[in-house]
Amino acid sequence: MQKKNIVNIGGGTGRFTLLQGLKKYPVNITAIVAMADDGGSTGKLRDELGVLPPGDVRQCLVALSESSDTLRELMSYRFEKGALKGHNFGNLFLSALEKIEGNFSRGVEEAAKILSAKGEVIPVTDDSMRIEIELKNGEILEGERELDGNPKIQEVGVAKVFSKNQARANKQALARIKEADLIVIGPGDIFASIIPNFLVKGFSEAVKKAKGKVVLNCNLTNKKGLTSGFDLDDYVKMVEKYIGKGRVNFVTFNTKNPPRDLVKKYEKKEGKGALVTFKNKKKRTYKVITADLLQTEKVRKMKSDVIAHTRAFIRHDSRKLAKVIALIAELGEYQNIIKDII
Amino acid sequence: MQKKNIVNIGGGTGRFTLLQGLKKYPVNITAIVAMADDGGSTGKLRDELGVLPPGDVRQCLVALSESSDTLRELMSYRFEKGALKGHNFGNLFLSALEKIEGNFSRGVEEAAKILSAKGEVIPVTDDSMRIEIELKNGEILEGERELDGNPKIQEVGVAKVFSKNQARANKQALARIKEADLIVIGPGDIFASIIPNFLVKGFSEAVKKAKGKVVLNCNLTNKKGLTSGFDLDDYVKMVEKYIGKGRVNFVTFNTKNPPRDLVKKYEKKEGKGALVTFKNKKKRTYKVITADLLQTEKVRKMKSDVIAHTRAFIRHDSRKLAKVIALIAELGEYQNIIKDII
Repeated sequence: MQKKNIVNIGGGTGRFTLLQGLKKYPVNITAIVAMADDGGSTGKLRDELGVLPPGDVRQCLVALSESSDTLRELMSYRFEKGALKGHNFGNLFLSALEKIEGNFSRGVEEAAKILSAKGEVIPVTDDSMRIEIELKNGEILEGERELDGNPKIQEVGVAKVFSKNQARANKQALARIKEADLIVIGPGDIFASIIPNFLVKGFSEAVKKAKGKVVLNCNLTNKKGLTSGFDLDDYVKMVEKYIGKGRVNFVTFNTKNPPRDLVKKYEKKEGKGALVTFKNKKKRTYKVITADLLQTEKVRKMKSDVIAHTRAFIRHDSRKLAKVIALIAELGEYQNIIKDII
Repeated sequence: MQKKNIVNIGGGTGRFTLLQGLKKYPVNITAIVAMADDGGSTGKLRDELGVLPPGDVRQCLVALSESSDTLRELMSYRFEKGALKGHNFGNLFLSALEKIEGNFSRGVEEAAKILSAKGEVIPVTDDSMRIEIELKNGEILEGERELDGNPKIQEVGVAKVFSKNQARANKQALARIKEADLIVIGPGDIFASIIPNFLVKGFSEAVKKAKGKVVLNCNLTNKKGLTSGFDLDDYVKMVEKYIGKGRVNFVTFNTKNPPRDLVKKYEKKEGKGALVTFKNKKKRTYKVITADLLQTEKVRKMKSDVIAHTRAFIRHDSRKLAKVIALIAELGEYQNIIKDII
């Protein structure tokens, strides 16, 4: 039987977790990565070297890598002193490869070979792109980094993100979307990691037209000022704004309650409604696949996995989420039986 | 038949050339690297991160690497802008691995695996060491970098180099010297790359006592203020000061004349006596193996070989020099026939 093609659009810890689990299944994985990041080590490299943002690509490659622990650890190593302070080794690795290959996509391809990645990682565009953030009071903030640091975001709230420069979609990204059996959106920050893909010319249309089913992995928690009080359907609405109403076929939703103290911790930081909710009775154009998707086991503390295990505390379980996605890819229209299997 | 153990003590372009050629022979190669370098990207990393000098180790690894051209090229890539300007990617790679492994030697071992090196690279010491340079007028300059940049060197001339801090030899380096069938000294800068090994406690003694034969690859050219007017025997004398009189068994010497314009260029920079000479009639305790060892073919212009092909212009030929060394290792006491073979 032919392997299924799974394409993921997502970001951050959640996507790292998904890819790490998914690479154990006999499927073709493509991770498409937004190119709007301009914070931290990535932002410095963009400013100083004029490269495309390597940070998220690096995380995907580490998640998919089947090379030695040392090499994976190296990719996540952060320099602590001197002029290199704060720079992530893996980012430098990707930026140097971009310079050598003369093109970010080709650099990433070479990196995938060196790291024995079980799957492809494709930048959504090879053009340099920036996003702007419109607050609910009409004010505009420039640069994705603002999403993560500007206190106004939490106070005022984000209305939308947009991009003035019209980046063009990477042809390979469009081809993979076209061939996909399953287009998996999320996990990932909706404003920082997901929507910036759809701001790239031609990308939303490709997802709209593609023959593959679309699954949305609903996030577990909301972010203050960004997705405060969002429920499952709000996430779908947000995504369908870009890919067309009715385009989402499945939504995965975690039903296992996190420990109460963790929830409190999140509510303290993110405000009321920090946990994403799901009202059962509504009529929907998409099927909700509810399951225990929560990470409850202690995670293996390998240094290279640090990203996945320190930023978030309420998080998806790598094996559980990957299993559901692999099942949806395999079963297609027989998804009704998924619930019995998981 | 058991593979011969060849240990090389050397540096720079010349050693790169030798290792690159030698890796094609069925021999066990160990490159021992001095740890006194403190100039350029290497010097910055030592100062800022407190690491051991990665530059020469990187060159040896690239020379011995059997991985893809891209990976080898990446290791020699130099950042051109921003805070990273002048830093060599391969140096960052080794420094990050040193930090992760907690020890430079182990970091280098991991690097050798990642780069599929056909041979070992061993720092002569895991201690931080610096050298000082005594000029012929008694003045002292601090740091190996002075050898390469301070105009006084050329004016006054170097009397000797020494080290105040007593670095201890790496045990693995001592073990390899003990097991060596052939200890190959050079090519390499005598003051910067060769003697600093002998300043490490226990290392000279190990070479003195070892059962293996010692070959000295005589340099092709002299450096003003450092080895001005040296002939073959001066090089031997310099080395035997550290490893004992009569310890050198063979000296390889190039007999092919470089093009006249190249010689002129060298004489302009390095003064009269820029080419190392050899007086045929002397009685010696070592056998001189004369052969055409000069690089005359156009070299393949792969970016990762840049180091080997831009710094020097009169240089050893990789295949010719490696062949002579492999023959000496193989033939041992039957060296008399080498001349007929080459």
